[in-house]
Amino acid sequence: MKQEDKILLAHGSGGKLMHDLIKEFFLENFSNPILASLDDAASVKMPPGKLAFTTDSYVVKPLFFKGGDIGRLAVCGTVNDLSMKGAKPLYLSAAFVIEEGFPYADLKKIINSMVKASQEAGVQIITGDTKVVEKGNADGIFINTAGVGVIPEGVEISAKNASVGDMVIISGSIGDHGIAVLSEREGLSFQTQIESDVAPLNELVEVLLNVTQEVHVLRDPTRGGLASTLNEIAEASGLAIEIEESAVPIKDEVLGACEMLGFDPFHIANEGKMVVVLPEKWAAKALDALKKHPYGKEAAIIGQVVAEPKKKVILKTEIGTTRLLDMLMGEQLPRIC
Amino acid sequence: MKQEDKILLAHGSGGKLMHDLIKEFFLENFSNPILASLDDAASVKMPPGKLAFTTDSYVVKPLFFKGGDIGRLAVCGTVNDLSMKGAKPLYLSAAFVIEEGFPYADLKKIINSMVKASQEAGVQIITGDTKVVEKGNADGIFINTAGVGVIPEGVEISAKNASVGDMVIISGSIGDHGIAVLSEREGLSFQTQIESDVAPLNELVEVLLNVTQEVHVLRDPTRGGLASTLNEIAEASGLAIEIEESAVPIKDEVLGACEMLGFDPFHIANEGKMVVVLPEKWAAKALDALKKHPYGKEAAIIGQVVAEPKKKVILKTEIGTTRLLDMLMGEQLPRIC
Repeated sequence: MKQEDKILLAHGSGGKLMHDLIKEFFLENFSNPILASLDDAASVKMPPGKLAFTTDSYVVKPLFFKGGDIGRLAVCGTVNDLSMKGAKPLYLSAAFVIEEGFPYADLKKIINSMVKASQEAGVQIITGDTKVVEKGNADGIFINTAGVGVIPEGVEISAKNASVGDMVIISGSIGDHGIAVLSEREGLSFQTQIESDVAPLNELVEVLLNVTQEVHVLRDPTRGGLASTLNEIAEASGLAIEIEESAVPIKDEVLGACEMLGFDPFHIANEGKMVVVLPEKWAAKALDALKKHPYGKEAAIIGQVVAEPKKKVILKTEIGTTRLLDMLMGEQLPRIC
Repeated sequence: MKQEDKILLAHGSGGKLMHDLIKEFFLENFSNPILASLDDAASVKMPPGKLAFTTDSYVVKPLFFKGGDIGRLAVCGTVNDLSMKGAKPLYLSAAFVIEEGFPYADLKKIINSMVKASQEAGVQIITGDTKVVEKGNADGIFINTAGVGVIPEGVEISAKNASVGDMVIISGSIGDHGIAVLSEREGLSFQTQIESDVAPLNELVEVLLNVTQEVHVLRDPTRGGLASTLNEIAEASGLAIEIEESAVPIKDEVLGACEMLGFDPFHIANEGKMVVVLPEKWAAKALDALKKHPYGKEAAIIGQVVAEPKKKVILKTEIGTTRLLDMLMGEQLPRIC
């Protein structure tokens, strides 16, 4: 590849330049024999079990932020969506929409992050696509990853399975990712402190399923934050969730930033946290197990599934009052993932 | 949903507006129980066989063109990539990156096209994602689809499997899609005549595999056109391909447009055509079978795999000369798919 240092429209043409880009950027880094066949689709032998399949596009702005970048996000987000069905994530696709003029150096950094995150999660990127659009018709780079995994026999996890009496666990402090990205974007003064929590959660899910396969719901509170996730679970199950506000771990810096900016930390995105809903009898053991893993060491029981008021989430505040915890109505933080 | 007629940033927020959009646009149209669970990943029981997995992002400009639109393209393109491994396509994901201000009416048209194309191909869209970026940070809408399918026992199709003596078939006329999109984009005077060939090819592949499973290579000549596809096959197999120029079906209007614009029709994208490479003994029967299907009625044998010159494609012209058919070097037609 010549020493041009920027992506050209021709890199998306299907011709020679695109093939060079694929070979020198993607094949070399995501190196595996399946991708290397460069056929229109990858083919793999899957272990027995139901197939889990998911997709997400990533449009985070800025592309690089404290604790991560769009590459790490694109791998972890999709690994986590598979994990939230109790699946063992196995293979990812990676599709890039790149704005003409995007620097090679940034693309390399992003690809390196994807490689590292894939290695950490134990997944392989086996198929991909690259498109280039004219300058001004995208914003740097958008990445889509889709993923496939296998759900072990006996695991049946879905938001609709929440049951009255189930306990609700969060695997750690909330709001870190959203505040980290926002502080980077806006150049806010608190930016030195807060790092994104972006991480693959598949090991943490494995730890949990080793305690019990009787997990009813797993969900990672990304866009829309913990509030949206809890409301989705209440909606899907037709039940209610009661949350003890004081039990929810929130870092002081995140709380401070939220107060300063008028945000509710329950609405702020996370990228390395999960909500676990499971029968009370398993809650203590599950919590212990989660706390032993680096990504779960601040895990906490934060509430319980109850029968009423149907499809609502109730927040019990420290001073003894209660309020409805609603989904975010409008836009709080665009392009957070 | 209120009567706003445009997509807002808040539709990508993870909150209430996004949930409304998903329910009223996507769930209702792509209606199936798997998608409706709205879990982070879909889960499905797959039939036995190897898994085929692929992805493509679609950035075609304009979004609507004669013979199709970005929605039909996004479904057919991914169905075809699965089909080119001999897989039966089963499930797709759909991920949308939408520019703020995009009209509801256009989104509805696109979704309707996706529904129709999915029905034609017999696939279901079972998982998805929606992101919204600020006005000016994308160009209307970009769609990513990934797909999974199952490769029947005994089918082993890959560009590297081309063998000396194999015949090369094209399933119909080349260049239709590229010229249709270009004429729409540039408002050229020949625009009344040419329609995109965008179509799902899975049935045509089934027809072929019913003749013989001994198909060595299938590939759809999209971006980069037939020239790139043939070069990819030559490269992967380490062999050469000889093509009879006069045997390649090209519509007069496409030829005329190419002459007028200085394009080589061998470099123009197709979205409903495939290249078949298979042993000579099967070629006549395969051709007959393809010709009986509406998407294969202009199929033709266009050449043969030979030993030398290694990794090259040779075009034998009507006047008896030969020339190397190269991959496109730079950019000819950006955003053609």
